[in-house]
Amino acid sequence: MNKIETVTVELDNPTENRSYPIHIGQGLLTQGDLLAPHFPAGRAAIVTNTTVAPLYLQVLQTTLADRGIESFAIILPDGEQYKNQENLQQIFTALLEHRCERKTPLIALGGGVVGDLTGFAAAIYLRGVPFIQIPTTLLAQVDSSVGGKTGINHPLGKNMIGAFYQPRLVLADSDTLDTLADRELRAGLAEVIKYGLIHDLAFFDWLTQHIQALLAREKPALRHAIRRSCEIKAEIVSLDERESGMRALLNLGHTFGHAIENAMGYGVWLHGEAVAAGTMMAADLSCRLQRISSQEVERIRHLYRQAGLPLGGPRMTTQRYLELMQLDKKVESGNIRFILLDQIGRSALVDNVPTTALVESLVACGADS
Amino acid sequence: MNKIETVTVELDNPTENRSYPIHIGQGLLTQGDLLAPHFPAGRAAIVTNTTVAPLYLQVLQTTLADRGIESFAIILPDGEQYKNQENLQQIFTALLEHRCERKTPLIALGGGVVGDLTGFAAAIYLRGVPFIQIPTTLLAQVDSSVGGKTGINHPLGKNMIGAFYQPRLVLADSDTLDTLADRELRAGLAEVIKYGLIHDLAFFDWLTQHIQALLAREKPALRHAIRRSCEIKAEIVSLDERESGMRALLNLGHTFGHAIENAMGYGVWLHGEAVAAGTMMAADLSCRLQRISSQEVERIRHLYRQAGLPLGGPRMTTQRYLELMQLDKKVESGNIRFILLDQIGRSALVDNVPTTALVESLVACGADS
Repeated sequence: MNKIETVTVELDNPTENRSYPIHIGQGLLTQGDLLAPHFPAGRAAIVTNTTVAPLYLQVLQTTLADRGIESFAIILPDGEQYKNQENLQQIFTALLEHRCERKTPLIALGGGVVGDLTGFAAAIYLRGVPFIQIPTTLLAQVDSSVGGKTGINHPLGKNMIGAFYQPRLVLADSDTLDTLADRELRAGLAEVIKYGLIHDLAFFDWLTQHIQALLAREKPALRHAIRRSCEIKAEIVSLDERESGMRALLNLGHTFGHAIENAMGYGVWLHGEAVAAGTMMAADLSCRLQRISSQEVERIRHLYRQAGLPLGGPRMTTQRYLELMQLDKKVESGNIRFILLDQIGRSALVDNVPTTALVESLVACGADS
Repeated sequence: MNKIETVTVELDNPTENRSYPIHIGQGLLTQGDLLAPHFPAGRAAIVTNTTVAPLYLQVLQTTLADRGIESFAIILPDGEQYKNQENLQQIFTALLEHRCERKTPLIALGGGVVGDLTGFAAAIYLRGVPFIQIPTTLLAQVDSSVGGKTGINHPLGKNMIGAFYQPRLVLADSDTLDTLADRELRAGLAEVIKYGLIHDLAFFDWLTQHIQALLAREKPALRHAIRRSCEIKAEIVSLDERESGMRALLNLGHTFGHAIENAMGYGVWLHGEAVAAGTMMAADLSCRLQRISSQEVERIRHLYRQAGLPLGGPRMTTQRYLELMQLDKKVESGNIRFILLDQIGRSALVDNVPTTALVESLVACGADS
């Protein structure tokens, strides 16, 4: 069944409409009709990486060329460790060498790293050019390509430099998941599970029942998981684009997860793996603070185990964890703010978590005391 | 007469109010009342340079400390050639090392380079933190500190990377002009004259009459020039914040000027000097296209000469000029767009300028044919 489903991110207000569609389906890379209206000047710059380029760059360029759109590619190395200033500068140099103007859109063809880097480049090149997301990993299709968070890492912290900058269009072609490494697929499922945990008990239950179908890459199951994830994200982003409130809920497990990524060196743990470990820690902490039951923690642990994801972080001292967590963007007046669960399917932003409980959870999830 | 005048940049719409005041007067660096409300968390990061820091950093930090606001300074080298990626990264490193959070404002204390760099840093650090401008040069007080254009240069082009990001407050303390080098004062006057040319014949006439008072740094004359310049800029920015139309008029002389700065190496010509030469070229071109009279060109030339500003560009081939001008952000489909004069006090954005006229103007203003 090769149908296209569409989720809309509503960003409409009285002075401007920045709403955009997420199209989900098979074979979208060959659908020139979806792309062509975005290239009135007949030119496109494509940013991708050394893994994705041999697989999907040619088909995309052919689709564009068939519509009279001339394109060139900027091919970066693959990995979170390359989401940095140097590669951003390399994008700008290529754009300037090719004389890209304000109306030349940038296309991100790849996973979360390519999407974050390209989106940020589009936000600040000539103070802003149009931007299109073509995510090719599960993680990017369900999370990073939607919602307009873009940015790069700094040696002292993850995603510390960036912008809110919305794409004009997201094309999530589920065929591209056929070539995804197993480990990447599992990492993407960590973010899918997150949506169930923060917002939708029924979706969490569905995931528990369909985890094997998802791991086997059955297309109907994947399409449902992508669509429901995008719907939840679109709903939350529409209500709070700039994370002044509920959007922070999407960061379940991320404070701890970013600390892991930062400590281990970018790219050693995949983002989704770190988020899974971080979510287990948030669940443990939620239980210690008597917000959820130990049975609920066990259900979460069970699903992550089925998905083949880490259930705890690497060995470091609690002191080191705490130091790294202080770098989180949600910190206010030195106070780390946590996303905790009130049940599976309901979450809250919590200040003033007692340090003793936090340390206990860190130890329970792998830290040296 | 030590009164404070205030110009408001109106950026009010049904969903948010981002309007902000520009306060103009003497002794503003010691006015804690104007600053204090912007630091609810009691912390500030100040970005300045090696020229300005010895003069004004201590007084500003004392004013803040008297209101219980703790601050630290990031001191950069002075000059346009430092408005680059490396110094931006240095700002981020310092902000992260000092654990600056989303509610810690960045203060730009300095000229246009400090303001552009700091504003851009504020726009993208943690995806946006509050920003305050304290311009200490005439150019920054009348132009770059107002309107939210921020950014850095790229080795291949000036201001190619940046963001529209508005300050919360601008403090233009005319006392800081006492220490300004003569050459910097003259460069600032180039932008002041620009406002008369694009928008206000009466102001141009006033400038012609008061150019000696301005060069002698007489405070009432300076205050009037700063206020009227800010009023014109605020009016234009309010109508077209993101330069979809009339805001481009503020770039009179800048396409040619940026080419000069780029060719000579950043910092060799001051920005205002390059703009003066570029404006003479735009005036010459306007005359060749029969938009203004040769008498009007002569009046403009006379005022720039009185102000001690360059009347033409450096010797380069017209080919080189044209190449560099192609890098301008206003270029569309390879077509350079010019700001031309329809009379002194009225300007227009013009496409499709004949290349022959352009080359003649370049030669008339210093290029080798």
